[in-house]
Amino acid sequence: MEIASLALKLHKEHRGKIALKSKVPISDANDLSIYYTPGVAEPCKEIAKDRELVYEYTSKSNWVAVVTNGTAVLGLGDIGTYAGLPVMEGKAVLFKEFGGVDAFPICINSKDVEEIVKVTKLIQPSFGGINLEDIAAPSCFEIEERLINELEIPVFHDDQHGTAVVALAALINSLKLVNKKISDVKIVINGAGAAGIAVAQLLIKYGAKNIIICDKYGAIYESREEGMNKYKQQIAKITNRNHLKGSIHDVIKSADVFIGLSVANVLDEEDVKNMAKDAIVMAMANPIPEIMPDKARKAGARVVCTGRSDFNNQVNNVLAFPGIFRGALDVRARKITDEMKIAAAEAIAKIAEENLSEDYVIPNALDKRVPYEVALAVARKAIDQGIARVNLTEEALQREISLMLNM
Amino acid sequence: MEIASLALKLHKEHRGKIALKSKVPISDANDLSIYYTPGVAEPCKEIAKDRELVYEYTSKSNWVAVVTNGTAVLGLGDIGTYAGLPVMEGKAVLFKEFGGVDAFPICINSKDVEEIVKVTKLIQPSFGGINLEDIAAPSCFEIEERLINELEIPVFHDDQHGTAVVALAALINSLKLVNKKISDVKIVINGAGAAGIAVAQLLIKYGAKNIIICDKYGAIYESREEGMNKYKQQIAKITNRNHLKGSIHDVIKSADVFIGLSVANVLDEEDVKNMAKDAIVMAMANPIPEIMPDKARKAGARVVCTGRSDFNNQVNNVLAFPGIFRGALDVRARKITDEMKIAAAEAIAKIAEENLSEDYVIPNALDKRVPYEVALAVARKAIDQGIARVNLTEEALQREISLMLNM
Repeated sequence: MEIASLALKLHKEHRGKIALKSKVPISDANDLSIYYTPGVAEPCKEIAKDRELVYEYTSKSNWVAVVTNGTAVLGLGDIGTYAGLPVMEGKAVLFKEFGGVDAFPICINSKDVEEIVKVTKLIQPSFGGINLEDIAAPSCFEIEERLINELEIPVFHDDQHGTAVVALAALINSLKLVNKKISDVKIVINGAGAAGIAVAQLLIKYGAKNIIICDKYGAIYESREEGMNKYKQQIAKITNRNHLKGSIHDVIKSADVFIGLSVANVLDEEDVKNMAKDAIVMAMANPIPEIMPDKARKAGARVVCTGRSDFNNQVNNVLAFPGIFRGALDVRARKITDEMKIAAAEAIAKIAEENLSEDYVIPNALDKRVPYEVALAVARKAIDQGIARVNLTEEALQREISLMLNM
Repeated sequence: MEIASLALKLHKEHRGKIALKSKVPISDANDLSIYYTPGVAEPCKEIAKDRELVYEYTSKSNWVAVVTNGTAVLGLGDIGTYAGLPVMEGKAVLFKEFGGVDAFPICINSKDVEEIVKVTKLIQPSFGGINLEDIAAPSCFEIEERLINELEIPVFHDDQHGTAVVALAALINSLKLVNKKISDVKIVINGAGAAGIAVAQLLIKYGAKNIIICDKYGAIYESREEGMNKYKQQIAKITNRNHLKGSIHDVIKSADVFIGLSVANVLDEEDVKNMAKDAIVMAMANPIPEIMPDKARKAGARVVCTGRSDFNNQVNNVLAFPGIFRGALDVRARKITDEMKIAAAEAIAKIAEENLSEDYVIPNALDKRVPYEVALAVARKAIDQGIARVNLTEEALQREISLMLNM
């Protein structure tokens, strides 16, 4: 049976993908009196006295809300809040499977930034973190910015930062392979949505000096007027310092790196031929990449990454978000900073480093070593940066992360 | 170790009481492609075409939000949204254990009716039902009324209606025992909060003609001015038709039934002596009842019920809410009507009927026969009333409920 009909059949048979699990036994009246009335009054009273104890006596510390409004679901676009639910449940399953994180889908039936911010803020008490998912740009930027400022718990828009972390990881290893430095290379990003802009920002933070972002109107440069928004204007101030104009086919000439977060087949072999020697092509449009790997290789690309599991070098967010949240939750980090994201990317890259080759610049999506190393790197960095509310020794941190990953 | 310290110790050891359970395996790339990309796009597309299919392809149909703002938690009062979380997690555990229902605590950090209604309404897509919990009166009445009108899924304030259902069940059997009819008896209810008013309303619906409700100012009568609110005014129009005035000690004289939903020790032996022959005393204040059972018995009460598990005849909401939601969810009822609540009460009463005695007017809280019979009665009634969106044959209904209770 092909994937599509199998997916329908199995989603139906299982009646969706997520359920609640009680962590405590209720087998007699005594259990009831410990975990419900009258015993439950005790942790309530303790938390009423000291709110931070909610992390000790409840499961808040391990629950993450997967918040969406269904406006940018997978490659399907604005399919609505209800239709986004299967993806959110899938995300929750991955959180649990790879990060030991309990995640719950919060599908907010609104396109209003103010409403989405308000709902998420008001339900904060139940959660240890917020994962924003599949919310269309540019709303997603404003929602994320507002929530990061207004919430006490970490907020992470996976479509932006999960993608950026994994793309950076793949790029670190690819550059190592071709012996180029990030500060020297010309990077062309196609796509100026949530992911494209976030990737550019993180690469700049990591040392990239020469990035050109294209959208459907071509290269974005300062003072361009067509198709701009606040976020493209901001990114235009720190990218494309030579004010290149023209289409993706123009600006890709002599580029060392292509990063596609756009649509199928926008590149042809000629474009890759026009890139610099040892070109790195990350064609991550899903399900059909900006250029198919065999074509890109034939045209001279040294390293090719895609978003697909059926090719080598899959840039898959599942390498990042479970471990990032695991690490952030375990030290009760208030935020997920750029430095924590970079630490995550370096940890991912390091795992593939020992067997580095053109066909292996990034670990397999199912590699179980990844979430542990990512969580450890992220937690350490949060402690270093003084934004962890729990400071654990290295030994205690390793023990805690191992424990939580196996729960 | 005593309950209090044991409760603290175990809540901490388990790190709270709830976790996520994935219902699907993710053991290889194939699983990932079925339950996440690209396969997950198929159920998304189906739901985008026909929204009702969200009940087929996701877990929405079995998730209930336990919504609170922490303003009336147990007997602890307004302890805040965070401090209420242990109770909400406990409720979720009971939902799962007794009803096979997946419940999730939504703690809304607000005392504003409008905000609570808005948040609940906007997150509706993730849930099959809403259980309101521990929200103070009179806000709880307005919130519930608004949500019932504005949501497509069933909304049930357990502190009101769960209590009312179980109290009615106990009363049905108690009256049978003393051979009195509900239409003939004088019933005095002490407490005019969420539970007191809901109990009065359901008893009236079931045929009670003579109910007097007291609050701390004494009997509530039409035209009373002290300490009234909209909801007390409404209930004053349909109770206390003789306009009795005075304290609980005055109006309890000659009463057949006392129902306490108030505070410890408000009754003394003299009060019970002043009641009619074969008096029924339901003293449900927690943890200390309005009068202790031994005192009430000594003063002549024929049947005594409390809210406590260490006495006979425990009126415990866990007899009602798991089965009520199980039944409502399994036929996708749009509402939980008074008739469905009465069907639940009758089903509960019926289980205790065969062994009826002064010490057994209501089944044990842990009696596993209860949720099945309650669910069945509630679902049947929803189908009869034409508010079920799924019409199952009796056989299919029984199979479905059994299946879901054991999942």
